[in-house]
This record gives sequence, structure tokens and C-alpha cells, in this order.
Amino acid sequence: MPITHRHLFGPGPTNPYPEATEGLARPLLGHLDPEFLAVMDETCDRLRQVWGTANTRTLPLSATGSAGMEAAFVNTVHPGDVVVVAVNGLFGQRMCDVAARCGAEVIPVEHTWGTPVDPERVVAAHPNPAVVAAVHAETSTGVRSDIAALGEAVRAAGDALLLVDAVTSIGGIELRADDWGVDVGYAGTQKCLGVAPGLAPFTINDRAFARRVQRPQSWYLDLGLLGGYVGEAGGSGGRTYHHTAPVAMVSSLHRALGRVLEEGLENVWARHAEAGQQLQQGLEALGLELFVDKDHRLPELTTVRVPDGVDSAAVRRTLLERYDVEIGAGVGEYAGSLWRIGLMGPNARPDAVTLVLGALAETLGR
Amino acid sequence: MPITHRHLFGPGPTNPYPEATEGLARPLLGHLDPEFLAVMDETCDRLRQVWGTANTRTLPLSATGSAGMEAAFVNTVHPGDVVVVAVNGLFGQRMCDVAARCGAEVIPVEHTWGTPVDPERVVAAHPNPAVVAAVHAETSTGVRSDIAALGEAVRAAGDALLLVDAVTSIGGIELRADDWGVDVGYAGTQKCLGVAPGLAPFTINDRAFARRVQRPQSWYLDLGLLGGYVGEAGGSGGRTYHHTAPVAMVSSLHRALGRVLEEGLENVWARHAEAGQQLQQGLEALGLELFVDKDHRLPELTTVRVPDGVDSAAVRRTLLERYDVEIGAGVGEYAGSLWRIGLMGPNARPDAVTLVLGALAETLGR
Repeated sequence: MPITHRHLFGPGPTNPYPEATEGLARPLLGHLDPEFLAVMDETCDRLRQVWGTANTRTLPLSATGSAGMEAAFVNTVHPGDVVVVAVNGLFGQRMCDVAARCGAEVIPVEHTWGTPVDPERVVAAHPNPAVVAAVHAETSTGVRSDIAALGEAVRAAGDALLLVDAVTSIGGIELRADDWGVDVGYAGTQKCLGVAPGLAPFTINDRAFARRVQRPQSWYLDLGLLGGYVGEAGGSGGRTYHHTAPVAMVSSLHRALGRVLEEGLENVWARHAEAGQQLQQGLEALGLELFVDKDHRLPELTTVRVPDGVDSAAVRRTLLERYDVEIGAGVGEYAGSLWRIGLMGPNARPDAVTLVLGALAETLGR
Repeated sequence: MPITHRHLFGPGPTNPYPEATEGLARPLLGHLDPEFLAVMDETCDRLRQVWGTANTRTLPLSATGSAGMEAAFVNTVHPGDVVVVAVNGLFGQRMCDVAARCGAEVIPVEHTWGTPVDPERVVAAHPNPAVVAAVHAETSTGVRSDIAALGEAVRAAGDALLLVDAVTSIGGIELRADDWGVDVGYAGTQKCLGVAPGLAPFTINDRAFARRVQRPQSWYLDLGLLGGYVGEAGGSGGRTYHHTAPVAMVSSLHRALGRVLEEGLENVWARHAEAGQQLQQGLEALGLELFVDKDHRLPELTTVRVPDGVDSAAVRRTLLERYDVEIGAGVGEYAGSLWRIGLMGPNARPDAVTLVLGALAETLGR
């Protein structure tokens, strides 16, 4: 069988940075090997930089971004806690499900899909919640929410923990967890960080850790136990075995983060911004309508309305089969009426913009 | 920095099969790409073969073996259920912790470390448990337990589900889930399957699935939701997105399983048996004492007593630094008094036996 190369311009995974692939293919190290522990330590340091945090408890969890969401809730939500969730897409909905399974009293604050989170409405939903949760970059709709404003509102209103999904924002757009008052954050590797899916970059500050559930319902994601392995106490001595870390994936993340930080975070953000703007202008030049208002669009993930009379799935199939170009369908009620085009990590570049616009124009006959 | 190549002769991870590394480095496919779904389907088929099962619900969970343990319990244990756990090492102990977090009434049946599970004692522990759990190959001690006998005893005693940890047995020694009456099983990739850590091969039969927890406390490991993505209903149409599958790891597992099945499962078992026997004879020829009785030794993981007066950690450090050979320390009270030597996957070969015995002999001056 020939090996296929796809251009992954959907909502993720994206094509990995070459450094990430090289990291995957390196000879494997043992999970307690001093060389690997040094790689793990440096990975955590690099994650702190992309998160914009000084939190000592910043680490790659050994599962995908959705497990990061689960880790965030199981470690911070005590049974009966009030959890206010800003819902403006699929991942906000999922947060409600996950929080409810932790025994939370969930208060969803519903927003129209395609619009950003409204901090005032979120804060008004309950006088004293234990946790307020929101998604920074909604992968289902392509919307960016203002987490800085939400953080300010949450702090002004009380002492709730702010829990943020940064799966599709990390490594692609500005993210400043500490400055914005994010207490708990989780992300994924397969979007703007340009690594295969399989790890969940995670961060939790001292305030949230102090309030944590002492024996969470998940053993695998128990942050109290995980700290012993990632060397929370500092230094490389005395690591305790918890589970076997996914060493190849961590090595891959380590390499990709090195690449991102060498380019410079602000340059990486600028590269994503530029590619997204070029794509969005190009789509409009093709006469296509974007789903999200200009002010709230993500550069790394653009949602486009499928023109009337066009078979959404047929276009995606042609793009895949003729051009090896993957774009995403919409989600939920938008499954057939939206496309989602991602330019993430190494794909946030002019060649990707030109290719996806050209292939789409040819396929649509525009 | 030069890239280090280690000989991974510890309790896991082992060095991957070359095919597994090649699978990791392939161009990434999207998790909903038809080509990837075909890889996923074939991976599940291949997993059925190594599990010795016809269970339709056989899949690679998107996290390491320990998450497989968690998935087994969260999906089958209802609050208040009696769970009898055979404890003859660290992983039996861990099962008790995980089951308790699901609200189980846990009845541990303690065995002396280094001895196999006694089916009679396990069955006598409670008249009508919901679940009986045991470890097939105890990674902490190097002991093989007779799961066929346990399965027979459990069926004779009542209708408890039999839940089995096959992390260190799968792909290395005989494993026949269906013949032995295993209702729920989980494993890891980083041992005898010769793949990097990061996935948990999992299987559950209809009987156990019918009794499952309808809304388990873990969203990420909810088998009811996962079925929609792995195509439980058969066919490749209508896959529902649950979480983004770790495509690179699945591709790697797919390739390694192909290699194992091409060699032939019984041949692979024979290769592990032979390498283990050669190692164990060689260790005794060096005057070292094995921890486990001959009848219950695992070939793929051998536990050796550290000779009196020898600094366990210093020997391991010399092996690592001089020979690039990793072996494992003991666990718990045996941390300083045992070594664990694994010959798993591609390392179950004469060259590995000769290297580890030679390096150990030179280091010990024997």
C-alpha cells in the first residue's frame, strides 16, 4: 500500500512540525531514564512559556485534550459544587457533561453558536460558584472569546476558580494564563502546537491546587499522584512511578515546543494571524460567507457557510480525493451547512492558504 | 546533543519493533479520514487476535495501560458493588484503589508477593461479588497467574464478571480471553507488543457490556460513547466524533500488530519463552537467585534477587552509563533487593540475552 500524505486543513489534527515527527521516531527512552526525565522537565518548562504561566504544576497529561478537560474537573469539583459553564459551542456543552459526572450542580450559560462568551452574563448566572468554565477558542464554531475580560469579571465577582479550555488556542493565538487569571487550563497537542494527538498540556495554580479534591474519582488523572512523577518538588531526584509516561509523544512535544519557542511565540502568533487573515479574505473574495463576525474570528480555524445548493460532503470528498486536502464539516446542527478550515502549526503559512483556496475555488467552480 | 540509543531491558517500555517506529513517523492522517478509519478497523481486528477474543468491543483506548484499568472499573462497577481483587503485587493493589474510587466495596485477597493468584481463595472471599479482578502477569514481581483456572472457578461460583489485567502478558505469553472466561480485559502497548507507551488495548464482551454503568464517572473512558467512533455497529459509515484519536500511536500499534501476526502468535510466544528461559538459566549460572518459583515465572519479565552487599542502584547505573542497558529496580519493599529484567517484543532474542547477561557479569565481576 502506498503511504498517503494529506494536507490536514481541518479542525485538527494538523500536520506536525517536522521536529515533532523527528521526536516521535527517535530511539525510545525509558520513562525513568535520567535523559528522559530531563526531556520531561524541559517540556514542562516550555509548556509554561506557551501557557504564559509560572505554575510549577504544568505538565503534559498522558491522554488527549478531552482527558485534559476531565482532569480539570475531577481535580477541582467537589460533589455539590456549583459550576457555571459558558456554552457557546460543542466543547462548552461537553464541559457540562463532564462536570455533571463529577457531581457538580451545573449552570450552563447558553450563547448563540458563533458568538463569543459574554463575561457579564456568565458572572450574573450565580452569586458564588466554585468554578467558572469557558472555552478560549471554540473548535466547533471558530470563535475566540476574551478570557482576559472573563477573568477580570470572575475575580471581581467572587473567588470562583476560572477553568479554561485552550485546546485550539495554545501556540496559535495570544494566551497569558497568569495575566488573565486562569486557575486551571488544559489544551491539546494536535492543533497549533503541531504535534500528533495524544497529550493534554495542563496547568493548575497553587490556589486551585489547594482547593483540589483529595481523592478524585479518576486515579489516572489524580494530580496529587502525578506530581510525584513530574518532579513537582523540583530537581530530578526522587521521582515516583505513577503510570508509564508516553515517552515518544512527550519527546515529540518537546521537540515541537523547542521549534515554536525558537521562532518566538509572538512571531508564531503573528504567523497564524496572517495566514488566517489571508484565508478569510480569500474566502470572501470567492464569494463565500464567513460564520463568525470579524471581531471574534479565530485566525487558526475559520468557519465558512456552505453555499446554497452545494453538497458539503461531496466537496470535502473531492478535496480529499483529488487534492489530498482535508477540511472539516460543521458540528451538530451545522454539520451540513458549515466547513471548518484550520491553518495550524506548520500549516499557518502562505502555501497552505494558496493551496486550500485554489482547491476550493476549482472544486466549487468559482 | 547526540541521540542516545538504550537497550530497554526493564519492565517496560521495551524497544519498539522497527515497524512500530515506522508507523509513528508516517505522515499523519486525520482521525476521521477514511484511510485512518480503515487502519483503526484493522487494528481492532488484529487486537481481537492477540486477545484471543471475538468481542466486537475490542479497541485501543487513547491513553496508557493504567487508563485501561480505570476504563475497566468505571464502566463495570456500580456504586456499592462488591469487587473481589486478587492482590499479589503492585497492580493488584492499584486495582483496589481504582475500584474504590468507583464506589465499590473492595475485598482484597492478599497473596505473598512473588506467588501466583490462588483461585480457590479468591472465589471463597465472597459468595456473590459483581466483579472479580486479577492480574495475569504481575509486572511488579514477574509472576504468571493461571487465568484459565481462575475463570473456571469464578464461573463455577456465580455470575461475577472476570476482569483481567493483561498489560505484561499480551503479545508475549499465551492469552485466550474467550476460552478463559475473561469478560473485561485491558493491556498496554509498551511491553510485549513492542510499541511505545500511549494506548491501552481493551476488550469487553456482551455480557459485561450489558451490565455496564450507563453514565460512568469518566466521560473520556465511557465505552457507550466510544463505540460510536470505533464503528461498533460495523461498517465504516456513520462514525461519531468522540475525542480525537491519537492517530500516530494507533498507526504504530497497527504496524506492530501486523508484524506480530505475520510472525505468528504462537511463534512469538515461543520466542519469548525461549529468551526468558535462556536468561533465567544464565542468571542462575552467574550464581544469582531468582525471586519466583520455576512454575510461575514469566519469560518476558524476570525478577532477580540483588546479591548481599551489592548496591542495586549502582549496578543499574553502571549498566545504563557503560552499556546503555536499562534494567528495572524492584517495587515497594523490594525496591533495593530485586532487579527486574524484561525481554519483551523485539528484545525477546538471543542477542538481548547475551548482552544483558554479559553486561551484568562484567559489572558484578562474576
